[in-house]
Amino acid sequence: MPKPTIEQLVDGVRDADRRSIAQAITLVESVRAEDDERSQRLLEALAPHACDARRIGISGIPGAGKSTLIEALGMHAIGAGHRIAVLAVDPTSALSGGSILGDKTRMEKLSREDAAYIRPSAGGGQLGGVAPRTREAMLILEAAGFDTVFVETIGIGQSEAAVRDLVDTFALLTITGAGDDLQGIKRGVLELADLIFVTKADGDNEAAATAAATELRSAMHILRSSHGSGCPEVVTCSATTGAGMPEVWNAIVAHHDGLKTDGALDSLRTEQDLRWLDRRIDEMLRRRFLGSHVEAMEKAREAVRRGELVASVARRVLEAT
Amino acid sequence: MPKPTIEQLVDGVRDADRRSIAQAITLVESVRAEDDERSQRLLEALAPHACDARRIGISGIPGAGKSTLIEALGMHAIGAGHRIAVLAVDPTSALSGGSILGDKTRMEKLSREDAAYIRPSAGGGQLGGVAPRTREAMLILEAAGFDTVFVETIGIGQSEAAVRDLVDTFALLTITGAGDDLQGIKRGVLELADLIFVTKADGDNEAAATAAATELRSAMHILRSSHGSGCPEVVTCSATTGAGMPEVWNAIVAHHDGLKTDGALDSLRTEQDLRWLDRRIDEMLRRRFLGSHVEAMEKAREAVRRGELVASVARRVLEAT
Repeated sequence: MPKPTIEQLVDGVRDADRRSIAQAITLVESVRAEDDERSQRLLEALAPHACDARRIGISGIPGAGKSTLIEALGMHAIGAGHRIAVLAVDPTSALSGGSILGDKTRMEKLSREDAAYIRPSAGGGQLGGVAPRTREAMLILEAAGFDTVFVETIGIGQSEAAVRDLVDTFALLTITGAGDDLQGIKRGVLELADLIFVTKADGDNEAAATAAATELRSAMHILRSSHGSGCPEVVTCSATTGAGMPEVWNAIVAHHDGLKTDGALDSLRTEQDLRWLDRRIDEMLRRRFLGSHVEAMEKAREAVRRGELVASVARRVLEAT
Repeated sequence: MPKPTIEQLVDGVRDADRRSIAQAITLVESVRAEDDERSQRLLEALAPHACDARRIGISGIPGAGKSTLIEALGMHAIGAGHRIAVLAVDPTSALSGGSILGDKTRMEKLSREDAAYIRPSAGGGQLGGVAPRTREAMLILEAAGFDTVFVETIGIGQSEAAVRDLVDTFALLTITGAGDDLQGIKRGVLELADLIFVTKADGDNEAAATAAATELRSAMHILRSSHGSGCPEVVTCSATTGAGMPEVWNAIVAHHDGLKTDGALDSLRTEQDLRWLDRRIDEMLRRRFLGSHVEAMEKAREAVRRGELVASVARRVLEAT
């Protein structure tokens, strides 16, 4: 099958054609030199058409139920007329992928909806990192008209700060019943959070969830008042029963509206773009250097294999070029 | 106070003088251009004296008790005549640091021991990353004669894969009683583990810990047999009562001895050094580029602030240089 032209991809993405979206994301995620020019043309053609989406990060420890929450929340939002995209930054095993107890079908209901698009892994095999092109993948989804983009950071080993740098609203999902919830959440992660959702607030666990939410509210009050930033809203919910989904969605919308009203959204995104510029330049510098110093790098690797000090070898390579 | 000379630092580190070790690590962690030459001279002078240490990563979700385990294990190892260093890769809050419920004194007993050295944060403000110079900090500790170096990865947001790339033995610490332990451990992280410690095997929880260990052993058996690598040993322990500490220590020593016997240690460390070479070169390329293209970068940042597409701006900067 011939490669689609850039014009075909642009039209396909703007029509929200699923196959075109998938091909477009694959193209912009490519780090092969021969894809550079097509990737660039595609992004430039789509950028003016990107809708003004909410970008929401959902974080939490493994087992907190991030996928279940996103499914329940996504179904609620679709019911309210929104179009939902999910980028899952999955620390997929380089060896075989998936979770230890077999691959549960994740977000099964949401994935069947026309108004939803799920990109299962944007991790590109990087355990614990954000793929070098996640921000570009987000642009494709926004050009396809998805007005809400969730970035799910799955499990241990994720760089929460890197995801914080991709989204407008960073939500932390936590569960009760694990005994020492609050101790389990590091201050550094709490300080990143704009919203906190306490899930599994159902059945026997409802009272515990409410108590945990109260405790979190007062902890956040102490934590934030010391440096003047706003206090994140804490919302209890249950992805299983659907309880609290409207409240969770409203909290997201309210946070985002707040960012727009006071101009904070524009400056936040500009700051993020400036850091993204640094990342892109790093990546391009590396590729250019490796491409044009094949022999010097081979010698450097030989020196490291012989046991020379890495810091010295690196310095020598750079000084000789 | 005048800066110590490199000769003084070398002597101080080799004498395991705590102040010298701290100054030496601070120097090699520095990314200021004016420290480069001194840092390089220090590393080259110390490298031949680095002892043949065990490098052990200890990973696990927040609240699993990593610090408590390292303290109990460190005290046991010191009792057996070893000298222990701990590098804690702490996702310290850029704002205020510490954990939400106040700073517990961590590893209080171990920190009072002459045969132990604890470097509380090697993160350099990078939430979720390994500092660019952790491997060099490790070399300082090895030159000071610490024969066992623990690298603790604290909490959410850590890059387990980056720590895996710094150590010989990667141990995963897990707790029972949280309801869905196994679901909470991602296959990708389990596949990195050489050893698994199931902690809190004490009192009422002992039976649950033993059961979880059995379950993990069979899960690991299924997981690993599919791609032929060895099965990690699963050991139950309690950092509180000290139960299992000799077994945990012996498992670490046995794993490390195994690596040495079959020559795997040398090739593992060479592979790590080669990846570290790439990281060092990336870092130096970035610094060199930013240092010599101040004006072009300023223009690029202006273009991003005006809303130009980051990918296009990055490309333009690189093409013009």
